[in-house]
Amino acid sequence: MTVVADLTERELIARIQQRLPPPPEWLLVGIGDDAAVVEPERNRVEVLSVDSLVESVHFDRSFVPPDAIGHRALAVNLSDIAAMGATPRLALISLALPPSLPLSEFDGIADGFSALARRHRVQIVGGNLTRSPGPLMIDITVVGSVKRRQALTRDGARPGDELYVSGTVGSARAGLRLLREGSSTEHPAVDLRLVTAYLRPEPRVRLGTLLARNRAATACMDLSDGLADAVRQVAEASHVGAIIDAEALPIDPGARPWLAGRGLDPVDEAIVGGDDYELLVAVRPRLGRRLEAARRHAAVPLTRVGVCTEDRTLTIRRAADSMPLPSGFGHFR
Amino acid sequence: MTVVADLTERELIARIQQRLPPPPEWLLVGIGDDAAVVEPERNRVEVLSVDSLVESVHFDRSFVPPDAIGHRALAVNLSDIAAMGATPRLALISLALPPSLPLSEFDGIADGFSALARRHRVQIVGGNLTRSPGPLMIDITVVGSVKRRQALTRDGARPGDELYVSGTVGSARAGLRLLREGSSTEHPAVDLRLVTAYLRPEPRVRLGTLLARNRAATACMDLSDGLADAVRQVAEASHVGAIIDAEALPIDPGARPWLAGRGLDPVDEAIVGGDDYELLVAVRPRLGRRLEAARRHAAVPLTRVGVCTEDRTLTIRRAADSMPLPSGFGHFR
Repeated sequence: MTVVADLTERELIARIQQRLPPPPEWLLVGIGDDAAVVEPERNRVEVLSVDSLVESVHFDRSFVPPDAIGHRALAVNLSDIAAMGATPRLALISLALPPSLPLSEFDGIADGFSALARRHRVQIVGGNLTRSPGPLMIDITVVGSVKRRQALTRDGARPGDELYVSGTVGSARAGLRLLREGSSTEHPAVDLRLVTAYLRPEPRVRLGTLLARNRAATACMDLSDGLADAVRQVAEASHVGAIIDAEALPIDPGARPWLAGRGLDPVDEAIVGGDDYELLVAVRPRLGRRLEAARRHAAVPLTRVGVCTEDRTLTIRRAADSMPLPSGFGHFR
Repeated sequence: MTVVADLTERELIARIQQRLPPPPEWLLVGIGDDAAVVEPERNRVEVLSVDSLVESVHFDRSFVPPDAIGHRALAVNLSDIAAMGATPRLALISLALPPSLPLSEFDGIADGFSALARRHRVQIVGGNLTRSPGPLMIDITVVGSVKRRQALTRDGARPGDELYVSGTVGSARAGLRLLREGSSTEHPAVDLRLVTAYLRPEPRVRLGTLLARNRAATACMDLSDGLADAVRQVAEASHVGAIIDAEALPIDPGARPWLAGRGLDPVDEAIVGGDDYELLVAVRPRLGRRLEAARRHAAVPLTRVGVCTEDRTLTIRRAADSMPLPSGFGHFR
């Protein structure tokens, strides 16, 4: 079996280059020099984000196929750019690879990120390859752009603003459980939906740019570390509180009975589970029609899950009960 | 002892933020949102580079102090930007940390990159923190800028162009040997020079920007993977050959006897040794005065080490002898 250590760095880079579309005009110097040179976009500000996936922290190679590793590594970054309302433009990809990584897996990873990049017209302009004496790591930097006053930050929500989430919440975590346990909901269509949510999340780039352009949102952030974490971050940055309505959460209907059958609370799973690359959006009630327009054009479900309050507590309301919102996912603790 | 796992991600980020200067006006959204937002520079093209340092591949924590790890991680990137003739402007820093890393070492790493960033007026605009189940890894993306037609690439050298290197070659490798073996040249000043070359290389940012501005160089690249590798890359990209004069190599005079005393050839060490963040520059003979002006303003030694040839072989000439230039450092093979 051929492994990455059998090839030179240059041969490995060439395998990535083969997968890239022809360079656009704005790319003046691409892969192969000390650095990439690009022409900036006119009349836009730039949005930059970096995120990394680390083997056995963020993915498990025993059940995450190589192309899903590549896809997810780029998707988490595109999701950050989408949450700013920006259009992604280029990426730099840094890989630290165990020398024993089969070349076929390397190719699969490259397939995963290059296919997603192509779909979003993101140009891979450079990167870095190195050996890892431990886990496989992918670090991706994405640069995008947005009109000067349209960037969506976390700090613009006001009391009375309604909170919406795109897509479903908790699906990625349920999909991860299915994969990890090698089990099934007994409904192949549900399995596929949940597993896909975990392995190949669709960053909400189009929704983000539409929300920025029509100024529907007062605050926006992605759910990478779970809904509870996102609500907390938006509330803190905006100096508001929030009430989340547990009954309203868009939990995949196929996941509910499967989770309940294992003694897990679908609502808990949905609010603390990370890896849902959906957007949390705060909207003034009178701008509901703009939100609706963005939803329709992006063809993405948007569900009202709560409201921002003057009182700065964070509450989840459930039937007659109200409880403090739990903390989200922590990377160190 | 406090370790990084005792703190939350946010507390760790705050420790980095404390070390940063106040944000410049062009930084519209800094650390703390999904992504950074920056105003691009007018009338310049952007230069982007990413590089990573991986524990036990690129550094050994047993003899590389934390601040040197932070310094080097940024320096290798600034060196790439310098080699393009560009001025670095901002950086994104991604850290994958073993949970058992002492907090004092985390602080030391942050001290290292923030001090170097400050000296070069590079703003740290964002990053990522994650846990590593294995080695410590630092991945840095730097963005800089240069005037449109002034970027220094590798492909402009022509037969007859002279090859120069800045500073010394082989010092970092000699310094690494000293550290690894815990030995000494018996001359404290020499030890300090060599060890500093390895631990705290000075990226040649000022020299690079001066060479770009006065158009002295036809090609430029940094020596991160050694002189032999750099000569090979410039020659290949420019479709020329090269003759390197072994006697001319600017090897630290204090390193020569120490290396020779251990049965090592100082010239071999200098041409295949990596980690010298110096610049290799190709210059038309008639533009020697411009090179001299850049050298004087940057106050960096520049030594003529060879010449580009029409014949596409790569040769190192040594006394009466000529030999093929050896290959450089390979990250996988």
